[in-house]
Amino acid sequence: MPAFTWTIRVRYHECDPQGIVFNAHYFTFFDMTMTELLRAAFPEGGYGEMIERLGVDIVVAEATARFRGSARFDEDLELSATVTRLGTTGMTTELTVAREGTLLVEGELRHVFVDATTWTKTAIPDAVRAALAPWSRAGGQT
Amino acid sequence: MPAFTWTIRVRYHECDPQGIVFNAHYFTFFDMTMTELLRAAFPEGGYGEMIERLGVDIVVAEATARFRGSARFDEDLELSATVTRLGTTGMTTELTVAREGTLLVEGELRHVFVDATTWTKTAIPDAVRAALAPWSRAGGQT
Amino acid sequence: MPAFTWTIRVRYHECDPQGIVFNAHYFTFFDMTMTELLRAAFPEGGYGEMIERLGVDIVVAEATARFRGSARFDEDLELSATVTRLGTTGMTTELTVAREGTLLVEGELRHVFVDATTWTKTAIPDAVRAALAPWSRAGGQT
Amino acid sequence: MPAFTWTIRVRYHECDPQGIVFNAHYFTFFDMTMTELLRAAFPEGGYGEMIERLGVDIVVAEATARFRGSARFDEDLELSATVTRLGTTGMTTELTVAREGTLLVEGELRHVFVDATTWTKTAIPDAVRAALAPWSRAGGQT
Repeated sequence: MPAFTWTIRVRYHECDPQGIVFNAHYFTFFDMTMTELLRAAFPEGGYGEMIERLGVDIVVAEATARFRGSARFDEDLELSATVTRLGTTGMTTELTVAREGTLLVEGELRHVFVDATTWTKTAIPDAVRAALAPWSRAGGQT
Repeated sequence: MPAFTWTIRVRYHECDPQGIVFNAHYFTFFDMTMTELLRAAFPEGGYGEMIERLGVDIVVAEATARFRGSARFDEDLELSATVTRLGTTGMTTELTVAREGTLLVEGELRHVFVDATTWTKTAIPDAVRAALAPWSRAGGQT
Repeated sequence: MPAFTWTIRVRYHECDPQGIVFNAHYFTFFDMTMTELLRAAFPEGGYGEMIERLGVDIVVAEATARFRGSARFDEDLELSATVTRLGTTGMTTELTVAREGTLLVEGELRHVFVDATTWTKTAIPDAVRAALAPWSRAGGQT
Repeated sequence: MPAFTWTIRVRYHECDPQGIVFNAHYFTFFDMTMTELLRAAFPEGGYGEMIERLGVDIVVAEATARFRGSARFDEDLELSATVTRLGTTGMTTELTVAREGTLLVEGELRHVFVDATTWTKTAIPDAVRAALAPWSRAGGQT
């Protein structure tokens, strides 16, 4: 079960006076990676398909990043995401940012599934579990 | 008819690897200054009051900035706005960014008034004209 | 040993299509709060004074946030910071974001002190420990 | 002399509570397009090559955008840039943002060339003129 991966290029305005990507932007990179993971999981419409067809949305409950190195303007970054836990209503995803194979940042996002209309916590639909399975090492949790 | 003025302090992440505020952020400063101008014009509820009580919203149609100097991290910036034209449906506002009296950036925003529900162009209500008058040198246009 | 506190107002562009502050921006708020904490700790020159007079800088090693509620455009947010650990080279700070006394986000930043010139890990100077003491419940660690 | 073109996808955090890309971000898109134009013009090292090999940098002197339509989350945008004027020290570039062939935003950036070391205005090197020629309709100005 390999991680989902894709790449981005660092934009000039994402770098601060130290010449490196400002720390908060890595959480934006994490968020963007979730969008791409959902696009891969729901190939017909991605994140929007999950909301409209399955009636569920996700809300970030916790975000963590550990910074081991720095990225600079115009560098290509490899982003990865692996779903490591699918509970009743919660999902945990491990994310990494690397440059030419060197790990720069790693972290976790914990999401909670909510009903897309009422915005209340809801059980993760089986169709979501199945769609995420290729990028999950979450095992048999329910 | 003096300009509306307020101040902000430059945030670290707003500065780029050259150590100066990234150019696009000045347009954010302009937008924030419009919010503060509307707060002064509609003291009971600002921008939200205009939308809810008067049923109109504003959309940016054109934005321009000329850059004459650079601002750096932690500097205090004086922002000003003067409404220079109130047409039938359009409003032009001149904005400046200065540091200790030295002009750094000047520009204009042109907004169009729209019906807050249908999102179609609408005439500027007289109550809006009256509310903006203290910061306007737009004269007697209709 | 009360926390350091200050307030900010949510900017329009910090809110996403859900109408709430985008999650990554809270890490920017955390960073800004560290700047203000250092301004209070080094009243003559803040963060810059620490770098220039004491020859040390800080680098973010880890950042975490737990999201309990949502902030919206134009709301006033109360930000707090308490230094909870001052190790040999590392500092941990607890941060909170609240609106009218209701906790919205809480988290931690872990910083490492580095030599401002060589950019290598360095022991936290006693002058920094003393300056941070008023907002620290880090106790007697050295 | 066709325009330089490339595409980007709208990121979630670039959209505001109206669900559309916040106006200031289009100036970031313009800036990113200049970076890509310089990458095409200097295939060995892009913007960095211009600075290091030719000793010149560029500074934004004026930026304008006219907004004709709105872009939303996850949409693919076509960005174009055409150099329309190469003066002695100044360059003007026309930029557009379109979605599936429909023009959304158009604008101009005016840059001034500066010596990369002294940061003073400098004449545009012939090598820069030659490199930009494929995306220029600036004609024979000097």
